[in-house]
Amino acid sequence: MFEIIRRDGLARIGKFTTKSGKTMETPALLPVVNPKIRTVEPRELYDRFGFRALITNSYIIRNTPKLKEEAQEKGLHELLDFPGVIMTDSGTFQSHMYGEVEVTNEEIVEFQKSIGTDIGTVLDIFTEPDWSHEKTKRSLETTLERTRQACDMKGDMMINGVVQGSVYTDLREYSASAMATMDVDVHPIGGVVPLMEQYRYAELVDVVMASKKGLNPSRPVHLFGCGHPMLLALATLMGCDLFDSASYALYARDDRLMDVTGTHRLQDMQSLDCNCPACRGISIEELRRMDKSKRSKLIAEHNLYQITEELATVRRYLREGRLWELAEIRCRSHPALLDGLRRLREYQDQMEFYDPISREGAVFYTGPESRNRPVYRRYLDRLGTRYVPPTRKAALFEDTQGKPYSRPYAEQFAKARRAGYTPIVVSPWGPVPAELDEMYPLAQSLFPSIPDAETETESERLTFLFMQKAGFETVIEGDKVPDDGTEEFDADKLRAKAVARYQFGNEAAEALFREPVELVTSRKTGKIRNVISDGEHVLSMRAGDGMYTLRMEGAKRIVSAVPAPHMRVAVSDDAVPFVSEGKNVFCQFVLSCDPEVRPMEEVIVTDKDDKPIATGRAFLIESEMRQMRKGMAVKVRSGSDDE
Amino acid sequence: MFEIIRRDGLARIGKFTTKSGKTMETPALLPVVNPKIRTVEPRELYDRFGFRALITNSYIIRNTPKLKEEAQEKGLHELLDFPGVIMTDSGTFQSHMYGEVEVTNEEIVEFQKSIGTDIGTVLDIFTEPDWSHEKTKRSLETTLERTRQACDMKGDMMINGVVQGSVYTDLREYSASAMATMDVDVHPIGGVVPLMEQYRYAELVDVVMASKKGLNPSRPVHLFGCGHPMLLALATLMGCDLFDSASYALYARDDRLMDVTGTHRLQDMQSLDCNCPACRGISIEELRRMDKSKRSKLIAEHNLYQITEELATVRRYLREGRLWELAEIRCRSHPALLDGLRRLREYQDQMEFYDPISREGAVFYTGPESRNRPVYRRYLDRLGTRYVPPTRKAALFEDTQGKPYSRPYAEQFAKARRAGYTPIVVSPWGPVPAELDEMYPLAQSLFPSIPDAETETESERLTFLFMQKAGFETVIEGDKVPDDGTEEFDADKLRAKAVARYQFGNEAAEALFREPVELVTSRKTGKIRNVISDGEHVLSMRAGDGMYTLRMEGAKRIVSAVPAPHMRVAVSDDAVPFVSEGKNVFCQFVLSCDPEVRPMEEVIVTDKDDKPIATGRAFLIESEMRQMRKGMAVKVRSGSDDE
Repeated sequence: MFEIIRRDGLARIGKFTTKSGKTMETPALLPVVNPKIRTVEPRELYDRFGFRALITNSYIIRNTPKLKEEAQEKGLHELLDFPGVIMTDSGTFQSHMYGEVEVTNEEIVEFQKSIGTDIGTVLDIFTEPDWSHEKTKRSLETTLERTRQACDMKGDMMINGVVQGSVYTDLREYSASAMATMDVDVHPIGGVVPLMEQYRYAELVDVVMASKKGLNPSRPVHLFGCGHPMLLALATLMGCDLFDSASYALYARDDRLMDVTGTHRLQDMQSLDCNCPACRGISIEELRRMDKSKRSKLIAEHNLYQITEELATVRRYLREGRLWELAEIRCRSHPALLDGLRRLREYQDQMEFYDPISREGAVFYTGPESRNRPVYRRYLDRLGTRYVPPTRKAALFEDTQGKPYSRPYAEQFAKARRAGYTPIVVSPWGPVPAELDEMYPLAQSLFPSIPDAETETESERLTFLFMQKAGFETVIEGDKVPDDGTEEFDADKLRAKAVARYQFGNEAAEALFREPVELVTSRKTGKIRNVISDGEHVLSMRAGDGMYTLRMEGAKRIVSAVPAPHMRVAVSDDAVPFVSEGKNVFCQFVLSCDPEVRPMEEVIVTDKDDKPIATGRAFLIESEMRQMRKGMAVKVRSGSDDE
Repeated sequence: MFEIIRRDGLARIGKFTTKSGKTMETPALLPVVNPKIRTVEPRELYDRFGFRALITNSYIIRNTPKLKEEAQEKGLHELLDFPGVIMTDSGTFQSHMYGEVEVTNEEIVEFQKSIGTDIGTVLDIFTEPDWSHEKTKRSLETTLERTRQACDMKGDMMINGVVQGSVYTDLREYSASAMATMDVDVHPIGGVVPLMEQYRYAELVDVVMASKKGLNPSRPVHLFGCGHPMLLALATLMGCDLFDSASYALYARDDRLMDVTGTHRLQDMQSLDCNCPACRGISIEELRRMDKSKRSKLIAEHNLYQITEELATVRRYLREGRLWELAEIRCRSHPALLDGLRRLREYQDQMEFYDPISREGAVFYTGPESRNRPVYRRYLDRLGTRYVPPTRKAALFEDTQGKPYSRPYAEQFAKARRAGYTPIVVSPWGPVPAELDEMYPLAQSLFPSIPDAETETESERLTFLFMQKAGFETVIEGDKVPDDGTEEFDADKLRAKAVARYQFGNEAAEALFREPVELVTSRKTGKIRNVISDGEHVLSMRAGDGMYTLRMEGAKRIVSAVPAPHMRVAVSDDAVPFVSEGKNVFCQFVLSCDPEVRPMEEVIVTDKDDKPIATGRAFLIESEMRQMRKGMAVKVRSGSDDE
């Protein structure tokens, strides 16, 4: 039903297939079509704007005799003249707006089935942000009960099981975990419109992150009512896949234009200057003079173009592994959005699980908020637990713009090592030991040369803590290193082992570096290429990110030295022959996976008895492999049969 | 020739008229047309893209016999088929690229005249960033000498007098000041292309700001070679009016696409998804498959659309007084751009002179860099010199999201005052005394509720310094104020006078608040509306920004109490009758102006004998009024004849 095609942390490009056999790519936005007022015709949404799905309201249709009759007779797709996926809402939002609705859950679910909806919605209870914890909890139970009922009734229709819980993170997680166990098909997060209307984006982040914690990763997550272009990057970054927008049309009727920087009232705007296909060539005066209905249509189209353009941008950054950057830029448009971005710091640990161990592009720093990214936390965590200092004396060097640091500092580092000092650079990442400086993300990152006070202070604090934790007994400034050192050292070997510890853990690194160790370096760049241990080629190093790929010989070493599940993905018997030949591992064949594995990390594929049969890179993490029904789990590099 | 229509600090929307009578609006970009390879036809640039000016190279035309002949015969405009403004370059850039050029300054200036160029360029010497100070200085003298020669020769042609000086700020300022005294018509800043190519944006900021210091504000400033959309907001913010771009075509030939986030190589791009009129509907695969010349044309058009769209955005933010915000967002796209933005902090004082005393929109905070804006410096300066604490005891309150602070804190502030304490809020602006909290920019600003470490630390430091400087003897936390105070106070009167001191200075405020003082407040909002002193209506307060407008009676008070030039703009005799009737003051009639006046500040217009004849708001500052030949200097509110 839902397959992850590309990912950047929690964000994902997915392929969603309905039971009716329609497919759509996510992240996607579903325009809301009011069945009574069609500002833009559904057919136009499909043909001209490229929307492959929309939402309409089954409650309104059911309450409008003419529409009801036509929908039940011809079906919803013909009623709206829309060939794509149609999702229907159930009347919940009407209850939020106007109080009670006059329909039961059973009736509205049955009605949605009867008109041929692709994805119907339970009549969930909208939990308002100002509700008490107790009242919210009580209403959740009703929503869960109704969801169970709907799952039993759904037949060929897919069903939305809506996560509610007001602003209470415990209730959001509870509600999400309960939904994860039920037979729902899409996970909407509901009850968030008031938060968005009131610019309470920090709380929106709390709600989404708490929900994500409990949800089943094999189903698309729909942030109900979120469709403003300024929010799409942040929401996608948090792992939302589906969005919808009624505001494109509602705002248009109200002469409000949306773009990635916010909402602008026509009366306040000083110029239009918009290049979108709807506005191009039209001046603000002309737009103001248009008759109301023509103007509303034009503004609705403008709003839709802003949405499609931003969604395309979000997808592009996601594919390039740079979605954090885009979200950080977009969230500068309003201080309340910046609050949302800053609140993400509280979820750094949760996000770190999903963050790829390496990316193709460089890490661009956009401001102190960039330090909230999980890539920072990961580095500091692994440095703290997996780094073993080669000496007890440290020499501290300043950050320079030339990277890797060991290039501009070649002589100084060598001098320090001769004197028995381990060179450490005090960088915006915190402390960077010379051995690690070619590895992602350290060499593959760019910071401004004029530092901000927060990053400077934090970098010094982290270095101080690291000195203590790593057990350095002497610390001096790099330019105070004595001239007359005579210690011998092998910089390549120090680097080779330090990177292996960082990537695979200390035990595995010991097994991989059984003496005698020979390093093969590139004649052109001098960089490490292969690690030969005891005559066996166990590791190769990628030039791009300074990290290792694991060879079958290396995999065997790790399996014999380090108990399962470390770095393992075990597959069922029927997959063994294929994977041994070098075919990728698919979710349905995974028996178990090391819960410490991160996306893009080197893994050892084994059979059910922990016999290594292949090496590769994990595309998913344990919780995903366990719950996804479709898609690649491990991209296999070489199977045991290849060697 | 050049008139400022709108402004936002150093940035300006201008109307530039050539000697040939063509007009164009600035900021504007001039596409560079290579007379031998026209990637996009000049006629298309005019008709389809709306460019009203272009640059071509007179040196290349002169060296190509066929073009030379045609240009001299029909004129440049017919040669290129371009009805707008044509600027020609002189061969200087060729000397930067290929060494010496075979033409003298006299020859190339004469040649440019002969082909009917609107704006010709001196054969200046391109100063490379790696040149020594001495070598640069020597070359400047040659450039200045050649510029003098060109000015003598120019006739009906306008002339570009290029500011050079490598990366030396003293030489840039020297060169700019010399150009300011000559009869040149446009002020290009040259020799910056290598800085931009090498992403040395902090130095670019140094060069532009040092040049701006010396230049004549009555002439447009052209940042030679700057045309990348990602730079336009920052460059306009620094007061550049004209830009040019050869890269739209050069990059296109090289399959590189520009947008506001940077330059993207077609081979690295994962998708196109561009809504610009050139790309719309075309996929990345289609673009890659196109034949070379068609693809180059399409990419060149894409690049031009990105430029025109960003220029429109820059103009919109400029008109809305929000250009700082846009520049701060754009500069997040690359850490080197962020360096440029951060370097602006060094020029806060220089920029403060041009920063309007009030804006229509609110100040949105985008990150710690926002504190570089001159609006911060202004507030702290005036607080330090013009604030008089009503008591010697201060009670400190935390920043809240509700503004003005005296609304959520109404009871606490009253309690503090009864106990003899002056309420001070520790805000992201630094300390904010309760008396000032309705005034721009304090109430008209938005910060995230989750503060960053730098702003928090700085805010505490500033508050500490202020406590000492203002002479507070006791400082306590707001929640420690004793309950039983009995001091009497008049909060409105404290506010009324504090704002007057802030706006007009202490001496003027004393004169305006001669007792008995009566305050007229709004029945609806309770806010101060009018100040009646000794029976005379001297001041009115605007609800929008909490600042005063000065009445004629107030103006007379100030003139008799505070010696000139405080707040004065003196006009010549021939303007007196008109201004007295309420007509605006134009530059050519200004005799002198208080050099402390900032844009949008209340001023008193006087005759040459310091007799007040009108009140109004300054649109320009002293240096501009003195040097501009055209345009409004003071927007007069009421003349003495009205009363």
